[in-house]
Amino acid sequence: MNNYLGILTGGGDCPGLNAVIRAVVRRAQDDRIPVLGIYSGWQGLIDGNVAPLTRHSVAGIQYRGGTILGTSRINPLASDDMLKKIQDNWRRFGLSRLIVVGGNGTLSCAMRMWRDHGYAIVGVPKTIDNDIPGTDYTFGFDTAVSIATEAIDRLHTTAEALHRVMVVEVMGRHSGWIAAYAGIAGAADLILVPERPFRMSEICNMLSKRKQLGRPFSIVVVAEDAKPHPEEDFLTREQRDRVFHENRLGGIGHLVAGQIEELTQLEARVSVLGYIQRGGSPTAYDRVLATRLGVYAVELILREEFGMMAAVQGLRMASVPLEEIADKYRPLDDDIYNTARTFFG
Amino acid sequence: MNNYLGILTGGGDCPGLNAVIRAVVRRAQDDRIPVLGIYSGWQGLIDGNVAPLTRHSVAGIQYRGGTILGTSRINPLASDDMLKKIQDNWRRFGLSRLIVVGGNGTLSCAMRMWRDHGYAIVGVPKTIDNDIPGTDYTFGFDTAVSIATEAIDRLHTTAEALHRVMVVEVMGRHSGWIAAYAGIAGAADLILVPERPFRMSEICNMLSKRKQLGRPFSIVVVAEDAKPHPEEDFLTREQRDRVFHENRLGGIGHLVAGQIEELTQLEARVSVLGYIQRGGSPTAYDRVLATRLGVYAVELILREEFGMMAAVQGLRMASVPLEEIADKYRPLDDDIYNTARTFFG
Amino acid sequence: MNNYLGILTGGGDCPGLNAVIRAVVRRAQDDRIPVLGIYSGWQGLIDGNVAPLTRHSVAGIQYRGGTILGTSRINPLASDDMLKKIQDNWRRFGLSRLIVVGGNGTLSCAMRMWRDHGYAIVGVPKTIDNDIPGTDYTFGFDTAVSIATEAIDRLHTTAEALHRVMVVEVMGRHSGWIAAYAGIAGAADLILVPERPFRMSEICNMLSKRKQLGRPFSIVVVAEDAKPHPEEDFLTREQRDRVFHENRLGGIGHLVAGQIEELTQLEARVSVLGYIQRGGSPTAYDRVLATRLGVYAVELILREEFGMMAAVQGLRMASVPLEEIADKYRPLDDDIYNTARTFFG
Amino acid sequence: MNNYLGILTGGGDCPGLNAVIRAVVRRAQDDRIPVLGIYSGWQGLIDGNVAPLTRHSVAGIQYRGGTILGTSRINPLASDDMLKKIQDNWRRFGLSRLIVVGGNGTLSCAMRMWRDHGYAIVGVPKTIDNDIPGTDYTFGFDTAVSIATEAIDRLHTTAEALHRVMVVEVMGRHSGWIAAYAGIAGAADLILVPERPFRMSEICNMLSKRKQLGRPFSIVVVAEDAKPHPEEDFLTREQRDRVFHENRLGGIGHLVAGQIEELTQLEARVSVLGYIQRGGSPTAYDRVLATRLGVYAVELILREEFGMMAAVQGLRMASVPLEEIADKYRPLDDDIYNTARTFFG
Repeated sequence: MNNYLGILTGGGDCPGLNAVIRAVVRRAQDDRIPVLGIYSGWQGLIDGNVAPLTRHSVAGIQYRGGTILGTSRINPLASDDMLKKIQDNWRRFGLSRLIVVGGNGTLSCAMRMWRDHGYAIVGVPKTIDNDIPGTDYTFGFDTAVSIATEAIDRLHTTAEALHRVMVVEVMGRHSGWIAAYAGIAGAADLILVPERPFRMSEICNMLSKRKQLGRPFSIVVVAEDAKPHPEEDFLTREQRDRVFHENRLGGIGHLVAGQIEELTQLEARVSVLGYIQRGGSPTAYDRVLATRLGVYAVELILREEFGMMAAVQGLRMASVPLEEIADKYRPLDDDIYNTARTFFG
Repeated sequence: MNNYLGILTGGGDCPGLNAVIRAVVRRAQDDRIPVLGIYSGWQGLIDGNVAPLTRHSVAGIQYRGGTILGTSRINPLASDDMLKKIQDNWRRFGLSRLIVVGGNGTLSCAMRMWRDHGYAIVGVPKTIDNDIPGTDYTFGFDTAVSIATEAIDRLHTTAEALHRVMVVEVMGRHSGWIAAYAGIAGAADLILVPERPFRMSEICNMLSKRKQLGRPFSIVVVAEDAKPHPEEDFLTREQRDRVFHENRLGGIGHLVAGQIEELTQLEARVSVLGYIQRGGSPTAYDRVLATRLGVYAVELILREEFGMMAAVQGLRMASVPLEEIADKYRPLDDDIYNTARTFFG
Repeated sequence: MNNYLGILTGGGDCPGLNAVIRAVVRRAQDDRIPVLGIYSGWQGLIDGNVAPLTRHSVAGIQYRGGTILGTSRINPLASDDMLKKIQDNWRRFGLSRLIVVGGNGTLSCAMRMWRDHGYAIVGVPKTIDNDIPGTDYTFGFDTAVSIATEAIDRLHTTAEALHRVMVVEVMGRHSGWIAAYAGIAGAADLILVPERPFRMSEICNMLSKRKQLGRPFSIVVVAEDAKPHPEEDFLTREQRDRVFHENRLGGIGHLVAGQIEELTQLEARVSVLGYIQRGGSPTAYDRVLATRLGVYAVELILREEFGMMAAVQGLRMASVPLEEIADKYRPLDDDIYNTARTFFG
Repeated sequence: MNNYLGILTGGGDCPGLNAVIRAVVRRAQDDRIPVLGIYSGWQGLIDGNVAPLTRHSVAGIQYRGGTILGTSRINPLASDDMLKKIQDNWRRFGLSRLIVVGGNGTLSCAMRMWRDHGYAIVGVPKTIDNDIPGTDYTFGFDTAVSIATEAIDRLHTTAEALHRVMVVEVMGRHSGWIAAYAGIAGAADLILVPERPFRMSEICNMLSKRKQLGRPFSIVVVAEDAKPHPEEDFLTREQRDRVFHENRLGGIGHLVAGQIEELTQLEARVSVLGYIQRGGSPTAYDRVLATRLGVYAVELILREEFGMMAAVQGLRMASVPLEEIADKYRPLDDDIYNTARTFFG
């Protein structure tokens, strides 16, 4: 009987995952707890695709993007068969406790696995979108904002040299956190976020006014989920369906730029930053946050605070019931948006 | 009579333009030659939009993207009216010599202004695409390659974590220089360049084989002007028109990824790097190259080698007749392509 | 009577100062408050070296290091003459309120100017050292940590390739914040901070043990103010005087490396990161924090909360009485240190 | 009989070594030549510390600093015993050809091993100092220049904000290549290189004149091996011995700054960049160069051009006899120095 602490990473790629894994292994080692790595998220628990993690296997991984454990988007609650296999493997591999690192979906699932099926689970929040409630920040967010900001810095010079409107589409499912932070840091002239449906007439008026005032260039940052006001009618039925129902990466930026060119005399270009925002080496900030969350998650395990999520609140680490955050998204903070708006126009 | 040395920058944005401008002003100063900055490319010469450049006005600009002189794409040879205005302003502002910094189009125009209209002009090659003949490298290219490489590094982790094919569309009008260099530096598994029309069947076979060999992820770098072999028939007539006749930024990457998903069992995602490759602070390499070209252009002016273009060949600066390079593009070097191909598959 | 809002920056260089200045000007503009820039810290108020700041004068400065206002370390409370000149200039230039951006010294001075001399002042904390009480973080800190982390990443490869101990001396007067964060992010094997006097015997034992366990390389991060335990006797009298009384940049790292070579069989090299940690473009995080502090400082001015310092606590902005933080330093948080210690050895 | 192609890396750390190793393995694979990695430079050949390198073992290493083979500074020609062991191991492990990646010392040794002992060797030049004759550039140089340039950019803001002279000591044993390139890219006001002994009086005059002209800040880049003119007498005997006989990292920058403070009214600060210049991820340029050299070295092996060194000349790869470059250093090019000097003062 090995009494293993398991760890799995679920959902999309996010800079900092490896720093969490390393921190969990090193902190567990201090209390002589063996750690079992579970590959490809819940799938590894279903398939029995696991291997012990040692200090050696996590050496030097904190600065690398991706996750040495791999990931998947499978939902183990979707079938009794998967649940049965997990139950079997849990015993077979001597697991007694589990740390689940994931986004809204994975953590909601972790909550149910704990609450409904009794697994001793602690969660660690993971999303570049920063929209998980209960924690000030999630790792990956600072890296995404940094990459988007560097891109906006670069686009500024082209916008100014060629007198163009550069529309920069950044990531942000459901929320405008990345758009707002990168827009503030990159000195955007306008930021469109899902929390505030936009009106093309206002956008075009603002851009035209800038031109009249001698600023014939502009940077417009658009979150991928930004949406026009429901009363806006510039969209075709097909576009409307796509914008409001699907989440096609790259859609909204092109629509906004197209409308700007149609409704003003300005030349507009689009830059869809896409996946470069979620891969690669994490920033120092994200490495520290990920490391602290990993260390703290093991401490929650040691204190048997199961069903909780590790979080950061101010300078302090904190624990939050998974039930409170499951299936919820945190919209962009009003204060942040208002700060951003100070610089519009 | 001021006997001014004029300088103008034409064409698109390119990191290093400001370093050239600074170098021209500082080197001219050594020989007490006053420099006149001409704004918005040839347009400034047409409109008389000029101002003297001093050491003070170029201090600290070498690391900034864009061009303090602005740029435009106007062709002064297109009308006698413009030529007349240039002639008038040339005298009015006491110009006697001119340094023209630009890409293929601007330099071809400079050649004609010198050959057919007698202006004492020296050219400086400028393009991120590295496709101007007569010089080993052009400034802006190293910056574009660096940005694209950093993006590919980041996409690698997502490709590996999620078992995806990441199609990365990079810049490169006419030529595959950026694609080949960034693909080599970023360890791409396949690189598509305009010089070698591609066949979807070969691409898909290669990617499928990689999967069978335990590499279910791949990075495919595609130059924006890469084209399928004329016999390929996967394109609709509309797509074909677009690919072969227009140069729509962002087109080919999506087409390739779509075909990969259709013809294999692999998930493919696209990242169109776009304008971030041509803006912002130049790399150290590009700053040195741009500075050397600026200094050398003034030396050509002093030696009255008009109608020549400053160039770098190995460690040496060299001059090349504008007539030899006008209206020509340099395709990707075969050696470089063959080096890249060593790593395909 | 202009009713100007003044702004000055005091103390050393710190990435983010220009973002604060821009934010103050833009936010004040919303309430039609004219802003007067005061050059070279308090010196500008003494000399009357001031100029109005407009939207135009702060355009595009948020990403640049340094401060467009310049700075100095003068203490206006040191003489009645200086105080008199400030009083005169305050009236002469129509100042009615003042935002003071500075570190412990400048803010303590600001507190006295408000409390003892009645000036309507709001403070903004500024230090790369993160040791001002009352706020979770100060801008400049994240940039310093990022630069130090990147340096440590680079030193890792040399340490591993050549089997060396690399001693990295980072900034941190009085406190170990930078050392701890950069050490965690950079996976240091040991971190020496002022808050925990070190013993050479423990350090050497740890490094020797690492070697025995097959890790003949190590990264030791040392804060510039780290000090040996008072009972340690490896220092000569002259060294002791220097370490305990002066604050010579570059001293302690060399001493520690020298001792390691003397007491173990290991080769040690030193890297003193120095001033590169406090200059240049701020990170996205620091730009956002600096911008929020600047906006919030104007809001405190509007609410007439004079004698207060703008701060960030969790996701929220907050105000803290300058009297509470004046003349105080905040040591490195115990939790952070303990997290760092998890990875020692 | 395996007919292995061996590869070893000797001398100090240099960004790009892993890219060479990967390229050698991948190119050799195309001709079905098995590659044997030799660990710790020549030491591995003496000790028989070797292992086959496969495509798998070199996957994804091209962007990592250091060398997966390790390195050492041992000279196998120093004893017959070592030569005998190498001879034995060469047969024992089925080696028939060897690629040696190293700097001046390692390549000179490789030349003798080929010429005097008959080993079928091809050399690949490796040094951040760019001072190996016969090749335009060496990999590692661009990375070192980039890091130094970024540091100088950061120091500029502190120099300007606080009116200081910042003395930046960069690497460069024997030669001023790094100093000149980084100084040009970073807009240094003065660059001191070993090829041109300096006089303190000239330096101080220049800095004082800058101050009089309203530029009270300056950036002075100093190569670690820069030396005062032999007639200069500011050095104590002890300092003179150190500067002219030893090569103590960090010496000359402090001496120059000390003299500036003593002889002018200016405040001077020193930043010794040190080892951060030679570690970590290579730039895109260095990855491409290292990859091309690795591929080309295998082609030289296939063509049996032993005793040659792979080189880059302009856009082309070339081969140079090791005998021509052994025991020689290439000083900084005069043209480059003259370009740099245009910006002095």
